[in-house]
Amino acid sequence: MTAALIALLRDVVGTAQVLTDGDLTAYELDWRKRWRGKALAVVRPGSTDEVAAVVRACAAAGVAIVAQGGNTGLVGAGVPDASGTQVLLNLARLNRIREIDRANLTLTAEAGCVLQAVQQAASEAGLLFPLSLAAEGSCTIGGNLATNAGGTQVLRYGNARALCLGLEAVTAAGDVWHGLAGLRKDNTGYDLRDLLIGSEGTLAIITAATLALHPPPAATMTAMVACTSLDQCVALLEAAQQRFGPALTGFEVMNRLSLALVSRHFPRLRQPLAIARWKVLVELSDNESATHARAMFEGLLADAIEAGTIADAAIAQSVSQSRGMWHLRESIPLAQSEEGLNIKHDISLPISRIAAFCDSTGAALAARWPGVRLVNFGHLGDGNLHYNVQAPEGHDAAAFLHDEEQAVNHLVFDAVVAHGGSISAEHGIGVLKRIELAQRKDATALAMMRAIKRALDPQGLLNPGRVL
Amino acid sequence: MTAALIALLRDVVGTAQVLTDGDLTAYELDWRKRWRGKALAVVRPGSTDEVAAVVRACAAAGVAIVAQGGNTGLVGAGVPDASGTQVLLNLARLNRIREIDRANLTLTAEAGCVLQAVQQAASEAGLLFPLSLAAEGSCTIGGNLATNAGGTQVLRYGNARALCLGLEAVTAAGDVWHGLAGLRKDNTGYDLRDLLIGSEGTLAIITAATLALHPPPAATMTAMVACTSLDQCVALLEAAQQRFGPALTGFEVMNRLSLALVSRHFPRLRQPLAIARWKVLVELSDNESATHARAMFEGLLADAIEAGTIADAAIAQSVSQSRGMWHLRESIPLAQSEEGLNIKHDISLPISRIAAFCDSTGAALAARWPGVRLVNFGHLGDGNLHYNVQAPEGHDAAAFLHDEEQAVNHLVFDAVVAHGGSISAEHGIGVLKRIELAQRKDATALAMMRAIKRALDPQGLLNPGRVL
Repeated sequence: MTAALIALLRDVVGTAQVLTDGDLTAYELDWRKRWRGKALAVVRPGSTDEVAAVVRACAAAGVAIVAQGGNTGLVGAGVPDASGTQVLLNLARLNRIREIDRANLTLTAEAGCVLQAVQQAASEAGLLFPLSLAAEGSCTIGGNLATNAGGTQVLRYGNARALCLGLEAVTAAGDVWHGLAGLRKDNTGYDLRDLLIGSEGTLAIITAATLALHPPPAATMTAMVACTSLDQCVALLEAAQQRFGPALTGFEVMNRLSLALVSRHFPRLRQPLAIARWKVLVELSDNESATHARAMFEGLLADAIEAGTIADAAIAQSVSQSRGMWHLRESIPLAQSEEGLNIKHDISLPISRIAAFCDSTGAALAARWPGVRLVNFGHLGDGNLHYNVQAPEGHDAAAFLHDEEQAVNHLVFDAVVAHGGSISAEHGIGVLKRIELAQRKDATALAMMRAIKRALDPQGLLNPGRVL
Repeated sequence: MTAALIALLRDVVGTAQVLTDGDLTAYELDWRKRWRGKALAVVRPGSTDEVAAVVRACAAAGVAIVAQGGNTGLVGAGVPDASGTQVLLNLARLNRIREIDRANLTLTAEAGCVLQAVQQAASEAGLLFPLSLAAEGSCTIGGNLATNAGGTQVLRYGNARALCLGLEAVTAAGDVWHGLAGLRKDNTGYDLRDLLIGSEGTLAIITAATLALHPPPAATMTAMVACTSLDQCVALLEAAQQRFGPALTGFEVMNRLSLALVSRHFPRLRQPLAIARWKVLVELSDNESATHARAMFEGLLADAIEAGTIADAAIAQSVSQSRGMWHLRESIPLAQSEEGLNIKHDISLPISRIAAFCDSTGAALAARWPGVRLVNFGHLGDGNLHYNVQAPEGHDAAAFLHDEEQAVNHLVFDAVVAHGGSISAEHGIGVLKRIELAQRKDATALAMMRAIKRALDPQGLLNPGRVL
């Protein structure tokens, strides 16, 4: 049976593109090295039709399929389980930019296109594809859509969902949905596009997408600001939104420990401003000019200093200073890894509740685990915090993770839900949060999700055991 | 059986809120006066729990339910059919603004809130709810979401879908999904919110929504511009997007006949600029000041005149001049009604294809129906045209509509599909375009839609015969 399926798959995609032997670690081990699976075979189709034929063959054989892009996901949704019974469908060979339509501000890319290649193609056409995140050099647009990826430009441009106008996808039956379209408005029936986006390969396999591009701003400018409380950061956000409107493209907060770890592990990185309880990286994208951007920034910061909202501020004086500020922000996860294992949370909250959440949750963690350290940073403008919990100084980080992760998660997620937040803002559910989702999601929503899953994948062969 | 159901419904919502006798025209006849139905009863619940109880009672009796908001829909989705067997569930009494969260820029409203009341509540809090359309004085937010309404601000703020962060809804089984949330990022499972938005009451009944607000701009300014071709209008759009970025909030085109009909039927309305083949209403929303907005506009128009993109332009010198320009635009549908019945199309196209579509389709219509008149206007920035076909001058408009509607639709929709467009940009499907949808939509998409409908409404009781 298995041998017959593999022979059939070799017919479909070519012998060289069906891998069953040798070192398949790159496909079977996830990026965080947390889940190591074993594939029945790694199959690398070269076209949408080949994807459809692979799915039909697997469906006929009753074999499950795990779709994989750049294998940079953080929740274990893109690697097979350990059973050795699942086909790993790697989409890296579907990597053509099919079309750029400048007047329509759209780009059509196949699922396996690396995000950076999409950004690059847009840029070469004089346009901007604003999705941007740490893994952009290896993650793929198919994976970005399957997980509804976020990143650093969501405040202005939305997440992956908001940047996608149309999809091509292969259903569980192996049919192709030809839903590519460069339309800003289309009210012809149910929103299948948004249903597939964020479904983590459990409802269909995305093979291509029509993406929305934007005219690039005339100038981008960043500033680093020091605040003495999270309330002040929220007040600054409100003032910046009022003054800049959609020109506010970044608003990242970092608590003192986040930047202290960067100092400790990357001492060469220059940190503007003295140590502060909170720092904010503010980015303004101006349609007029750098001079105008600077004047706008100076107005905001002068008012904020006068109002007592901020303690200190530094506007980047050059592109390289601006890159340096972003580099500090982006070094936090790496610095944290250097410091040792930790318990990561990717949460979102109503912005009005963030300060209260952090006050009470920080106090509760400190009471239960004296000396515990919070590496708290993230996209405040989106209400999204990476609220990571690190063992007390000098403690064994691995032991802390092993012994306390469940209890820490429980405390944090209870608090998130009590404050009207989400336990997964941008990373998804996958394997990692599947149990939590079943326990915490609204029961009616779960029932609807399960009904949709059964309707679109009656055999349960698309990425089983993920999300639901 | 029926008597027992009605007695039960009276128990649930109170006798006064179950209407079975007297003149029910306001509920049974649609706004366009195109579909007159007959309800088994008109039921007016006063709370989400009452909606759920009504749905459970109807489900137990196997009786279909048509949800209705302000009854301003254009495709016949909000009135019962003529069978006298469907319950008309009017949601007007669910009209509370439940919460405004200024720091989070959100507002939670019940489904029956009139759109203008939502705009007003936001405005009183110093914020903007940007959804805006002709029916805003009577349409409801539940209907806006059920149809994914568009309107005049989509270019900048998106359609209703983009302005909704969370939903509360009642399923076909009468369960309540508590999905209200003021979160910009939430990747916990399938996107049920966007699935229900635009589903026209066929998958669940929306009872409340958390909506996204925006800081209001410091100044809004409009200009009327004359172009000699649609290509020039597209070139101006490109230049305006490049220069204004997200500050470009309106870009409406109107062909010569559109404004000529306004002149004929509303001769008192002052028209700036001489007659032109095309006019464009451009709106800029500036975060800085009126002075800055004017300077931005003058720069755009000076460059466009120099480049030969536009023939003439007038910037509104006051709020009242600006309102006058919008009033011209908004008078087109009324002027058209005065001129006589016509064949309406609500289409969208990739912006890069609009000029070619209009050239070839206009020629094909003129060849087949000599003297036929095109009232062509709409939201060019979204690729959305109201491409309406009027009988030749002096012909009997009603006879033309009756005799030629099907053939005209066929020609226009074939051309739309050939150019990669949509046959319903913002009005939806309802009864009006159900057959067209079944004929023209991708077969795989239709199969997925039908599977989802069966999964979420297995008895087929929610708005049957609409969309699918």
